[in-house]
Formats: sequence, C-alpha cells, structure tokens
Amino acid sequence: MKVTVSRKAHFNAAHRLYRKDWSDEKNNSVFGKCSNPHFHGHNYELIVHVTGNIDPETGYVMDMKNLKNLIKLEVEDKLDHKNLNQEVPEFYNKIPTAENIVVFIFNALRPNLNSEHQLSITLYETPRNFVSYSG
Amino acid sequence: MKVTVSRKAHFNAAHRLYRKDWSDEKNNSVFGKCSNPHFHGHNYELIVHVTGNIDPETGYVMDMKNLKNLIKLEVEDKLDHKNLNQEVPEFYNKIPTAENIVVFIFNALRPNLNSEHQLSITLYETPRNFVSYSG
Amino acid sequence: MKVTVSRKAHFNAAHRLYRKDWSDEKNNSVFGKCSNPHFHGHNYELIVHVTGNIDPETGYVMDMKNLKNLIKLEVEDKLDHKNLNQEVPEFYNKIPTAENIVVFIFNALRPNLNSEHQLSITLYETPRNFVSYSG
Amino acid sequence: MKVTVSRKAHFNAAHRLYRKDWSDEKNNSVFGKCSNPHFHGHNYELIVHVTGNIDPETGYVMDMKNLKNLIKLEVEDKLDHKNLNQEVPEFYNKIPTAENIVVFIFNALRPNLNSEHQLSITLYETPRNFVSYSG
Amino acid sequence: MKVTVSRKAHFNAAHRLYRKDWSDEKNNSVFGKCSNPHFHGHNYELIVHVTGNIDPETGYVMDMKNLKNLIKLEVEDKLDHKNLNQEVPEFYNKIPTAENIVVFIFNALRPNLNSEHQLSITLYETPRNFVSYSG
Amino acid sequence: MKVTVSRKAHFNAAHRLYRKDWSDEKNNSVFGKCSNPHFHGHNYELIVHVTGNIDPETGYVMDMKNLKNLIKLEVEDKLDHKNLNQEVPEFYNKIPTAENIVVFIFNALRPNLNSEHQLSITLYETPRNFVSYSG
Repeated sequence: MKVTVSRKAHFNAAHRLYRKDWSDEKNNSVFGKCSNPHFHGHNYELIVHVTGNIDPETGYVMDMKNLKNLIKLEVEDKLDHKNLNQEVPEFYNKIPTAENIVVFIFNALRPNLNSEHQLSITLYETPRNFVSYSG
Repeated sequence: MKVTVSRKAHFNAAHRLYRKDWSDEKNNSVFGKCSNPHFHGHNYELIVHVTGNIDPETGYVMDMKNLKNLIKLEVEDKLDHKNLNQEVPEFYNKIPTAENIVVFIFNALRPNLNSEHQLSITLYETPRNFVSYSG
Repeated sequence: MKVTVSRKAHFNAAHRLYRKDWSDEKNNSVFGKCSNPHFHGHNYELIVHVTGNIDPETGYVMDMKNLKNLIKLEVEDKLDHKNLNQEVPEFYNKIPTAENIVVFIFNALRPNLNSEHQLSITLYETPRNFVSYSG
Repeated sequence: MKVTVSRKAHFNAAHRLYRKDWSDEKNNSVFGKCSNPHFHGHNYELIVHVTGNIDPETGYVMDMKNLKNLIKLEVEDKLDHKNLNQEVPEFYNKIPTAENIVVFIFNALRPNLNSEHQLSITLYETPRNFVSYSG
Repeated sequence: MKVTVSRKAHFNAAHRLYRKDWSDEKNNSVFGKCSNPHFHGHNYELIVHVTGNIDPETGYVMDMKNLKNLIKLEVEDKLDHKNLNQEVPEFYNKIPTAENIVVFIFNALRPNLNSEHQLSITLYETPRNFVSYSG
Repeated sequence: MKVTVSRKAHFNAAHRLYRKDWSDEKNNSVFGKCSNPHFHGHNYELIVHVTGNIDPETGYVMDMKNLKNLIKLEVEDKLDHKNLNQEVPEFYNKIPTAENIVVFIFNALRPNLNSEHQLSITLYETPRNFVSYSG
C-alpha cells in the first residue's frame, strides 16, 4: 500500500548559465540572456515526493516535520539567498541549469532517507518552467 | 490510447492525530500540535484521476459530470464539515492522517468506477503538504 | 510616497458557528452544516497589508522579517492548530465567523505597529471565500 | 539520468460538443449545456513535459526556448482564438472534448521532438477539470 | 466596523469583439484575433465583494450561501456556457469586452443586495488579464 | 463609470540589499542574508492596474495589447535577467528593495499613459511578500 507524501519548499538564488571554455559569443548564442555575466535570479519552488508504505502505528509514510527539517538542512541552507555559480561548490564547474539543480537536490536528499523509500523531486524555476527527477 | 481525466473537489473537516493506547506525552512527542485534544482542521483539496480509453462515440474517457456527482456522493457527503475522528466510522480506530484519508477516498471511489479504469487520488491537506495513492 | 507592503501567512484551526442562546433548529437553519457540534476546520490563508512611507535609509516601509515575526507571535501562536470556540478566549462568547476572526487579527496586530502605518487584513477561509478589514 | 522538463502555455478557444448523427435531444442528454449550438469557450492551460537525458555540454534536456517556440508554432498558432469545430480540420468530424484535444496536441508535437525524448501532455479545460496523455 | 466579504465563482462563455458598423478591416485592426467571426472563448473567474457592517447576532456581513445562490441566479445562469454576442441580450448591440461584462455583472447583482452594502466586482478574462468595477 | 483593467507580467533579476556607506556588520544586521555580496535573485510577478472610463466605441478602458507592449518596453526590457544593482542606473545608488522597485516601475509607466488614467502597481518579490504603489 504505497502512498506518496509531498512537501513544498522555497528558496531564491542568483545564477548565470555559461561555460568558461566557450567564447562569449557562443555562450550568448546558446544561453541568451541567461548568460548575463552580472547574474540574474529566481524564486525556486521545490516539491519533494517520498513514496513508501504507511506505518500502521502512526499512519505516516514519514513524519512531514522531519521531511521539512531535512529540506531546510540539505537544500535551503545550501542554496537559499546564494549565488549558485560562486557559492555552491557543485556548480563551480557545472552549469546551474534547472536540470542540474534538480539532480543536485535529489542527491543531497537521497542518502538521508530510508532506503526503502522512493524519492522524486520537482523544481519550478519560473511559474512556467519546471523540471523533475526521480533518480 | 489511454488518457487520464482529472477532477478537483474540496471539503473541509476537523481532526486530531492521536492513539488512544498511547500516553498524552507520547502522542504529543509524535504528533505535536496535531494531537491537540480540542481538534484543528483543514480545507482539503482533492484531485481524482481516472485513466482509460477514449470512448470513440462521445470523445470522453468518462463523463466528468458523473465523476463530479460520484465525488460528491462518496467523498464530500461523508467528509465535508465533519469531525473525522468522531463522525466518520473509518476513523473511530484509525488515525486520520492525510495518508489514511487518501486510502479511504480511493477505497470509497474504486468500486463505483468501471473496472477497466485506473484510479489515482491526490489530496492536499495544506497548500504545502499533499499525498497521493494509486491502489 | 505611500507604499503598501504585504505578507502572506497560514494557520489552520477548528471551529463551529452557533449561538448558545439559540435552539439547535435555529442554529441549523442559520448556519447549516457550519454549526456541526463536532466542529469542522479550515486552512486559513492570511494577508497582512501595512501602508507607510519608504524609509530613505533602508528602502523599507518596515522590515518584513519583523512583520513575519509579529504575525507569528500575535496570530499563528494564538490560532494555529487551535479550536477557536474552546481555546481562544475572544471566541468563547463570540461566533468565530471569518468576519469576526479578521477583526480579531486586526486588533491583535494594530497596537504593535507604528501608529503612522495603516493596516489592512485579508483572510481566506476557503479558496473561494475571503474577507477583509481595514479598521 | 532522465530528467523531465516542463513548459506551461496558454490558449483560448470556442467549441461545442455534439455529434451530427445524433438528434438534438440525444446531444443534449449526453453533453448537456456543452452542446449549446451557439458555442461556449475556455482558457486552456497547457503543460508540455519532455523527458530525456541531460546534455552534459549544456546542462539542458532540451532548450526551453525551442520548446516554447515549438508550442507556439504547433499549438497556439493552430488553436488560439479559434473555433475548434469550425476552424480546426481535426475537429470537423471529431468531437473537441478535452481528451481529443490533448491527443491532437500530442500528435502535433511528437514528430518535432528528438525521437529519444518521451512526451507527455497535460491540458486544463477549466481550473477544476484537466486531462493528460503520454502516447 | 465595515468588513468586506468576497466570493469566487466561475463561468465560461464564447464571444467575439467587433462592431457591426465597422468594416472587417477596421474590426481586425482594433480587435485583432479577438474579432474572429467564428468566436473564441474564456473561463471567466469572478470575485464578488460586498462591504457592510457585521451583524452582531450572526457575525455575518451577509450569509455567503445567499451570495453564492445570488451569483448563480443572476450571473452563472445568464452567462455560463453561453455565446455572449448571440444569447445575452445586453450584448446584442454592445461589445462584450471584459469591461462591459464586469459592468453588466455589477448591474445584475446591485438591485438584489441590501442598499447599505457596497458592491465591487473583479472579473478575470484570462489568468493574466482582469478588470474590476465598483459602480 | 470608472473601470480598472489589470495586466500581469513577469521578470526575473538578481539583486542585493546593502548600503556602501555602512559597514558589512551593519548591512548584515539590517538586511541579513539579503545583503549577500554575491547577490541572490527573484522571479518578480508584476500586476499593472489602469483605471479610467470605458471608451463607448471600443468597450475598452485601454487596449490591453498596448498595455502589454508598454510593460515589455518600459519594465521587462529594463529589468528582466538583469542585476539590478549593477545594470539598472536607478539602483546604482538606491537600494533595490521591493518598495523602491515598485516606485521605479510606477515612474517608468506613468508618463506613457493617458493623463486621465490612474495607475497602480503591485509587485510580488516572492509568493509570500508583495508591495503596491499608486503614486
């Protein structure tokens, strides 16, 4: 009897999309205004989905207070109000696209969850663009 | 050619999370303010997803008016403006967590649907916490 | 140069609408299922609007962190996960309609704000019903 | 490492649900006010989901600007501000239910995407009714 | 102690924007694709705001069930699933822009409300365009 | 017969809150993590409200296509995907708080509107914090 429990969270951050090994022209032609060297930013809306059996004693798949705290520790404290390119080691040499950020969040949370639980992440970069990843 | 049709509905209810066989201290340590003996409540937002083939004659998987009526009869009439612990027999001896409520809703709707249709339920307990179940 | 700054918050609570001095029949005819003696509940969405001049030194009308903390102290701590009729003294003898709750919230916040600031409160009882009050 | 990227779009259109080979009575009994011969209409909210591997060079599954342009060309230009029954050949002899429209959109986009990418479409006909199709 | 109570409702309709006394060219240059002779349509989201004193006996400004019923009778029954140009007499000779529709709704509701209550209407034609009118 | 027409738009940008004439300690104590020298960013949601009489010939207060284009020219082109502190002259020496940005947007749009029209701006910095200004 697998149920998925989901928790929304929020962080905002600055980033730019560019490759050091490309010319400015190439960065601009691929990433457009997203490669602005002065950075731009987003309010990222995050949804964390955890799937598992209902514990018959508590009626919970997992305690959402624990999930909320885990998201704070592993995602918000690392990314909120940060410049992703300059302050998050994962993105010193990896482009902080929504795709790469959602994989980073998955990898940050996965080791902290019960191994029998499945994890899926949805990340809104803007109200009209979002990505999801399930490992 | 399987298509999923989805319908949103709404109900509000009071509940508390606690086990009669636990001390107040244990209930409080596990469920926190959700175990308040005076109850608290939520606006539950419900999404019912039904998957099946498109009927070539009507262009419908199923008539959404019928689904709307079924949700009213099997979910809203049983749960809306109710105290889940005291007025819904399912929860006299089962904790009305979102997980247990979503399974209850699935079980209430499943027998009323065409057996070739798949059913999935999403239930928002708050705008930031939701659960889903597909049997 | 008056600017309005607004902050959203959230609490959930149980309540019932009834008057002790009315018969059950009269309560039921006026308040319908909202008078259920076992209570029901809501996720209340709150928006607090404060209007004032921009402080030229900080660029703030008021520090939103302070407003967030004030809402927590004066509204969330008093109402969240509570039974309004039984646990909030204001509603021992006053019906906890959305109208009366929005006035209560206004009166709880007003004395804690700069007297030159104007205050307005919006309170969603459900996604389709909301009230507002400006003193 | 499959990631799903999703893009929201919008169009509005008029339609009616009816079959020429049915009597008015039968159309009315099956489709109700949706068969109004004078038409009615909707703001359709569309979400296009594309699943594939992250390109290690760009960090993209696909360039969302390209997806946005493709949706404009293949969906918005064909359906926006149109009468689906009278101006969209697909629906001259097929009922423009949400189910049939979502299949039409899938079929319009599928040939324009990388064959290794999976496609899924979600279409809101109203804020409370939506459909999805994955081929 | 004036409080505003607000109720959301929904209807969908077809319309076109054009003037019979203008050439097709002029209609097209002023109204663009909104003048499509085959019509297009919208999901209109309506918010009705009523301002008045709280009745000390009930705690209500007005009973929201009555407001809900009034909106159904005076707005939804007249406009929902209709072709505004062809089926709503008000718009036989008046262009059904959002501005003219919001005034129509105001005028339909105003005579049915307590004369001491103030009325204001907000009408969303699309998620990004809306209008409001207070008499 | 004054009607208000409103249009939503969107831009995203990086910024930081700090004063050059304050120490790092003071900036940090007043602005907290919003003063991060590496910048952070937001998806700003903008609503522009214009109030005026309905033109009896067109049924419009103003053509929303013109308003949309004006917002693009005067707001989006100047602020979207920009670093507000480094690339928008207005904020070289003024702190880009939401309050100061909303006044900037008002001042950018006001001279381009009919002088008989009233203007009001609402700006969401995050889904929970927003500001508004009417001149």
